[in-house]
Amino acid sequence: MKTFKGGVTIAQGFKANGLWSGIKKSGKPDVSLIYSEVPAVAAGVFTKNSIVAAPLVVTKQRMNNNRAQAIITNSGNANCFTGKQGILHAKKTCDIISKLLGISSNDVLVSSTGIIGKPLPFKKIKASAPRLVEGLSKTKSTLAAKGILTTDLATKEIAVSFSINGKKVSLGAMAKGSGMIAPNMATMLAYITTDLSISAPMLKIALKNACERSFNSITIDNCMSTNDMVIIFANGLAKNKTITKKDKNFNLFQNALNYICLDLAKKIVKDGEGATKFITVCVKGAKNYLQAKTAALAIANSNLVKTAAYGSNPNWGRVAAAVGSLALPVNEHQLKITFSPFEKKDISICARLKLGKASATVYTSDLSPEYVEINGKYN
Amino acid sequence: MKTFKGGVTIAQGFKANGLWSGIKKSGKPDVSLIYSEVPAVAAGVFTKNSIVAAPLVVTKQRMNNNRAQAIITNSGNANCFTGKQGILHAKKTCDIISKLLGISSNDVLVSSTGIIGKPLPFKKIKASAPRLVEGLSKTKSTLAAKGILTTDLATKEIAVSFSINGKKVSLGAMAKGSGMIAPNMATMLAYITTDLSISAPMLKIALKNACERSFNSITIDNCMSTNDMVIIFANGLAKNKTITKKDKNFNLFQNALNYICLDLAKKIVKDGEGATKFITVCVKGAKNYLQAKTAALAIANSNLVKTAAYGSNPNWGRVAAAVGSLALPVNEHQLKITFSPFEKKDISICARLKLGKASATVYTSDLSPEYVEINGKYN
Repeated sequence: MKTFKGGVTIAQGFKANGLWSGIKKSGKPDVSLIYSEVPAVAAGVFTKNSIVAAPLVVTKQRMNNNRAQAIITNSGNANCFTGKQGILHAKKTCDIISKLLGISSNDVLVSSTGIIGKPLPFKKIKASAPRLVEGLSKTKSTLAAKGILTTDLATKEIAVSFSINGKKVSLGAMAKGSGMIAPNMATMLAYITTDLSISAPMLKIALKNACERSFNSITIDNCMSTNDMVIIFANGLAKNKTITKKDKNFNLFQNALNYICLDLAKKIVKDGEGATKFITVCVKGAKNYLQAKTAALAIANSNLVKTAAYGSNPNWGRVAAAVGSLALPVNEHQLKITFSPFEKKDISICARLKLGKASATVYTSDLSPEYVEINGKYN
Repeated sequence: MKTFKGGVTIAQGFKANGLWSGIKKSGKPDVSLIYSEVPAVAAGVFTKNSIVAAPLVVTKQRMNNNRAQAIITNSGNANCFTGKQGILHAKKTCDIISKLLGISSNDVLVSSTGIIGKPLPFKKIKASAPRLVEGLSKTKSTLAAKGILTTDLATKEIAVSFSINGKKVSLGAMAKGSGMIAPNMATMLAYITTDLSISAPMLKIALKNACERSFNSITIDNCMSTNDMVIIFANGLAKNKTITKKDKNFNLFQNALNYICLDLAKKIVKDGEGATKFITVCVKGAKNYLQAKTAALAIANSNLVKTAAYGSNPNWGRVAAAVGSLALPVNEHQLKITFSPFEKKDISICARLKLGKASATVYTSDLSPEYVEINGKYN
């Protein structure tokens, strides 16, 4: 597997664009479009929050046939808690893009991120749509990646390629994060594009696997968004023999997808609101993976562990208390806690439970006064 | 029911004392003793953390016979993660106090709060024990209340009385809090004394009930301590007809106990580390109490809700997302969220789920930059 500079346009047949429609006061890009020249097999992972934003309702419905060809995203407004009008706006956004692209409206997905409870500035999105479609290009992945950001400080892109029986397969991706749902319910979004040929069921399995140990293993503030989504498009233009089962080729793809998702997930944590440290939390010696991950998340979500990291204070009592709060059969004699040097920017905490052989790793940022200021002063 | 200025010595037969033994560098009281002239029926509620400090192990064991006559507490050291030596120190502390008081060692309970992982300065406690016992008095409840504090800014005491068939019954109490387990695993402790005559099973029931809607309904940082305990002594000197079932008299006592526990719980939240706001979170219209409380705690533990409170920003999107994260069958049309004026120091958040008729109230503080500084810079 090789990694490249690049993003969602690296794979054959994919173009993208991003521009300012007038939603963000800053004048930074706030609409973003990804387009595949041919219909792609599509799979998605969505927030488990029972309050979901309008574009998620619309996008989920359109993915029932596991097929899509484009996704339009706006930032600056989450189109959440916007009632029937919000649903209508999301559908109309898809309709407009589909007409301009000359494809079925059902093949256009939609996503939003930003402030909630305010009507989507639909007219601005509508007015920008022709320019957005006309400007689609192989060279504009970074503009597209900028168009989905909210309080993020850095653009998040990655591209890799690998071979399946001599056929080159490319994967590109972009993401946004910042707080899990901060400042006023922002969102984690990730879009992945590939020219791989793969069946819809196998694409779903691969995406679910990759998310479990990447996007579902990060936490900034333990707050779950109403707009989170990860979408993958596989358009088949690499012309490899279609992957339909868990064979060697599937594993090659899974590895590449895992790599991409973990890279983006780590970039999201590093760009977490107010983050001054990147913290890897590892739990070993658990009975099973779920127990290990639950313990790792308990440590990663402890405000006392996070403030200790901020203060470069490797406080094992707080880690022990976080593990102990789960009521696992762990006592003080079994539990071993180790730290990397805590003065560094990139630190790790490892807890060994001595209950079994399973392990899990999660990633988080520290809790700083800046996090409080960013989220307290927001209006 | 009447309320008084006073604390754990208000009820007949109880004396207390507090003094500096040399553990705290500040020279503030760090040992505290409560004593009943006659053996009392005792009940306790303890942390559910599976990592528990030595004094909890010892105290739980000594309460198997539901009887106690004294409790000694030191602050400044939690005697946690201190192995066999810690257990030995806790037992020896009880032995010394019992000899000085001339009572059975099994009737002396022990508790510690403060820094963890460091050996208990047993010699200092031992050396102070004679003075502690000699100085026991009806007038020193506040000194005793000071002796259990760690980073608390305020002493927490309350006293009430009520009548049962013409017999006056008094209840007094003291508590400490600050962070749930902060700074380096401090603790919530509460001791309640009463001259009521009541059977051990009924005392247990009453204490469990009272804790559920007071000490178990508060959260500062969602971090569970290894040392938390609530202990009640009922010595029977009021000479009321012993309460043995859930009758009218039991209800009178339950009401008084609920009042005392809720008052202390609120005082703990108001004195939370870095707290600038007192937040009452109410969830109504839930299917049952557990669902209501779970939803209320999800709101109260959301860092985004807590920072919004700090910033005087009544952000209903964050409240909705916290409720939604529980995957309850709630949609945006059902959920009603209301706020009291958010600029004030004492604020409330109410969420109505429209799933049933149950409700629950929990109490929390905001998340301020001071909380981060207190817990980040601690060494």
